[in-house]
Amino acid sequence: MKVIADLCVVPIGVGVSVSSYIAACQRVLEGAGLEIRLHAYGTNIEGEWDEVFAAIKRCHEVVHEMGAPRIHTNIKCGTRVDREQTMREKVESVTRKLT
Amino acid sequence: MKVIADLCVVPIGVGVSVSSYIAACQRVLEGAGLEIRLHAYGTNIEGEWDEVFAAIKRCHEVVHEMGAPRIHTNIKCGTRVDREQTMREKVESVTRKLT
Amino acid sequence: MKVIADLCVVPIGVGVSVSSYIAACQRVLEGAGLEIRLHAYGTNIEGEWDEVFAAIKRCHEVVHEMGAPRIHTNIKCGTRVDREQTMREKVESVTRKLT
Amino acid sequence: MKVIADLCVVPIGVGVSVSSYIAACQRVLEGAGLEIRLHAYGTNIEGEWDEVFAAIKRCHEVVHEMGAPRIHTNIKCGTRVDREQTMREKVESVTRKLT
Repeated sequence: MKVIADLCVVPIGVGVSVSSYIAACQRVLEGAGLEIRLHAYGTNIEGEWDEVFAAIKRCHEVVHEMGAPRIHTNIKCGTRVDREQTMREKVESVTRKLT
Repeated sequence: MKVIADLCVVPIGVGVSVSSYIAACQRVLEGAGLEIRLHAYGTNIEGEWDEVFAAIKRCHEVVHEMGAPRIHTNIKCGTRVDREQTMREKVESVTRKLT
Repeated sequence: MKVIADLCVVPIGVGVSVSSYIAACQRVLEGAGLEIRLHAYGTNIEGEWDEVFAAIKRCHEVVHEMGAPRIHTNIKCGTRVDREQTMREKVESVTRKLT
Repeated sequence: MKVIADLCVVPIGVGVSVSSYIAACQRVLEGAGLEIRLHAYGTNIEGEWDEVFAAIKRCHEVVHEMGAPRIHTNIKCGTRVDREQTMREKVESVTRKLT
């Protein structure tokens, strides 16, 4: 089952600067061979369900190993069985209607 | 790794009445032996990371099998390594401060 | 326009114990005369759109005033124009299908 | 109060093709003069709290006017009082750590 997800990891108890934790998550996601795209409030991820969620779990493990005692995470995830659709196609189907 | 999660599954392409799909997800979560609590905008879930996310994947599979061509899901999930905390304790720590 | 919302406020930069901030938000929401229900990963809120979002803004202001330098908040919100539906009815429509 | 938000509007009861509704929301946000950036699972928005949330309310109104009987929306929103930060800076602070 393919999934398009959006991940936002918020380390708690490590102060207000969290970009080094987010960067570590990006490395986890890239290292898992997933198609990803960072934006200002999370990261789009595309891949097989099991691989995507294994990588998200690994993000939690890594952020805890870096010293964050607590993590709050938001995940949006979409699956569809009527047809395949990539992240690129989702964006293009909207932008086409805007021109 | 223990996790407290909040799950909100939104079937798309099956009209506006979605409660039968949500009920099916409740059965999946209960069948997985997870501690759960339904509220008006999702379901709190407590358990081991792998069991919780296996059940969430199963929810997607079941909702697709019921006929929903597309699913949009929101997950919030929290882990902590400083101490254990249950769903009940999270609610109580807030309500104690309100009295 | 009526809305049913779910609010989860996460203060950042104030350590791992956040229940006093959540309790303050509960007081804001109750003080606004909104129908609310605390759960283990947020608070269900029911009311008129403008009143609900004014109260959510006030929560941010209060949590900052309490000393949190940064806040991350999740809101789910649902509106419908086909018929009215309360938080209680949403839960009951699911639980009826489970018995 | 400045806010950086992420908006994901899901029309329910109008079938599986929702891009025309998302495009309409983009027009609302742009028409409100907000700094926005579409991604594969939502739209980043930057602006003053009141303007951002007035535009989000307008999105709900427009999507209902287009015929969607029900809408499910996810909003993430972040405020900070320690310093100003733009969407661009959030992304750059992560990408700098990845090179």
